[in-house]
Amino acid sequence: MASTVTLLIAPLPADAPADDVDATFHEVDASEPALRVGELSTQRGDGIFETLAVVDGHAQEAQAHLVRLRNSAAICELPEPNLEQWHAAIRRATSALPSTGEFALKLVLSRGVEHGPAPTAWLHASPAADFTVPREQGIRVVTLDRGLAHDAAARAPWLLLGAKTLSYAPNMAALREAKRRGADDTIFVSSDGFVMEGPTSSVILRIDGVYSTPAPSGAILHGTTQQSLFEHLEHAGERTEYRDIPVAELALADAVWLVSSVRLAAGVTALDGASVTFDEATTRRFNDYLLSPRD
Amino acid sequence: MASTVTLLIAPLPADAPADDVDATFHEVDASEPALRVGELSTQRGDGIFETLAVVDGHAQEAQAHLVRLRNSAAICELPEPNLEQWHAAIRRATSALPSTGEFALKLVLSRGVEHGPAPTAWLHASPAADFTVPREQGIRVVTLDRGLAHDAAARAPWLLLGAKTLSYAPNMAALREAKRRGADDTIFVSSDGFVMEGPTSSVILRIDGVYSTPAPSGAILHGTTQQSLFEHLEHAGERTEYRDIPVAELALADAVWLVSSVRLAAGVTALDGASVTFDEATTRRFNDYLLSPRD
Repeated sequence: MASTVTLLIAPLPADAPADDVDATFHEVDASEPALRVGELSTQRGDGIFETLAVVDGHAQEAQAHLVRLRNSAAICELPEPNLEQWHAAIRRATSALPSTGEFALKLVLSRGVEHGPAPTAWLHASPAADFTVPREQGIRVVTLDRGLAHDAAARAPWLLLGAKTLSYAPNMAALREAKRRGADDTIFVSSDGFVMEGPTSSVILRIDGVYSTPAPSGAILHGTTQQSLFEHLEHAGERTEYRDIPVAELALADAVWLVSSVRLAAGVTALDGASVTFDEATTRRFNDYLLSPRD
Repeated sequence: MASTVTLLIAPLPADAPADDVDATFHEVDASEPALRVGELSTQRGDGIFETLAVVDGHAQEAQAHLVRLRNSAAICELPEPNLEQWHAAIRRATSALPSTGEFALKLVLSRGVEHGPAPTAWLHASPAADFTVPREQGIRVVTLDRGLAHDAAARAPWLLLGAKTLSYAPNMAALREAKRRGADDTIFVSSDGFVMEGPTSSVILRIDGVYSTPAPSGAILHGTTQQSLFEHLEHAGERTEYRDIPVAELALADAVWLVSSVRLAAGVTALDGASVTFDEATTRRFNDYLLSPRD
């Protein structure tokens, strides 16, 4: 089996019948050029993406990721994606991958070539990095100022804060800054003192037995992994809540996690240099659940 | 002559001798694929760019653009570009273009392919759009909240505010919002009430005969066209200044311009729906200067 799959996708209108979608896929070799320099994704980070995990042949939460892709498209005024076409692309890629192991499957919808007639789209699946250490031993985290108030999205929707856009250079710079500070990852905090999100993850705190995550105000992404985990916790009778979380609560929490689609749940062991209790047993249960087939 | 030129560039280290740079250029057809899907420029807007004008065969302010490219690279922790190599690429592209007319020449330095060994780079030159109307008749502008305090860059350098990165999706969204409001362009204002910049331009005001532009605090780009125009004004005995400009001063100004490398000087004729005096004669002098060969 191939360990990487790259499909160029000719996007169908949202309401087009998806009964002959195979003709809209074109498999390419990822080591060969596939995109033109006029691509607005590359010129201006002007497009959106999703990254989902494929675990032992199963694409995790494909529908939740595609619903978020559709939401990002709406925020960015991109043509509404045809979810059936994307589901078919995910199925085709997944069936070409080995039936065991973990893979990262990235979906990209770009505004297309400058002055071009249509968006461009592709899917790229490749082996996931080995996340054994962050899953089992946790991560050190520093907080970094995101510069924006936690209600910025309502005042300035053109900042596209609720969309998962390709304009991620500041997110990558924040991760470099975290590493420079001796940490593994970062939690963005708003200029008015609220917990936001990681550059590529959602934040979950547990205080007095209640699992909390920042309210999806539009200034942060609504995390697919966080939502899946909250549903799982609720089914198990645990209490969960969405609310504005002042930064000071990070230090009061009895456990903190960063959760994301491919690394899954990583417990925080240190926050800005201070130790945080790492709940190894709960983190293992989280990851056992997150590695099980989910839809 | 070709009206578009695309050169893929194998970036040399900053201190490498640039005596055989032609071997580092590979001319391609812009309509053919040239970039891999693993490109971090396209996956994460993770790279930097410059756009300069070529007017009647002359690349305008090439050195100023390359110095800014080098500054952007430093902020983004990209390898320092070899400016001699970039100058050679600009010369090669310029010599291949027609000797009359206006062209936009875009330089891109990307972090490269994910997990790859080196950055990737390219240059793409194409005919400039026809900017006769905005130059001669001006533009309507609305102000839009940038969400950030005007001193955000000092507090949060990981936001990369002083770098011209490829993560421009919010800039493009702000232009769409401006058009939705019946305007042609926008001026970003900081959350604490200061004038910042346009999404692809610098702001210049004239109040009581003094030309002012926001101080380059790091939260905005230092505009190459604005700098060139200020030098020109100073040589002509005019007064110029860099300072923090409260938004309220926009309404007090006797003229406002957005200036950029390819559209050049566009006088503002309306601001948030209120008329602004359009100084047609000065704007024409600005554009006569900006269209003359400049280094």
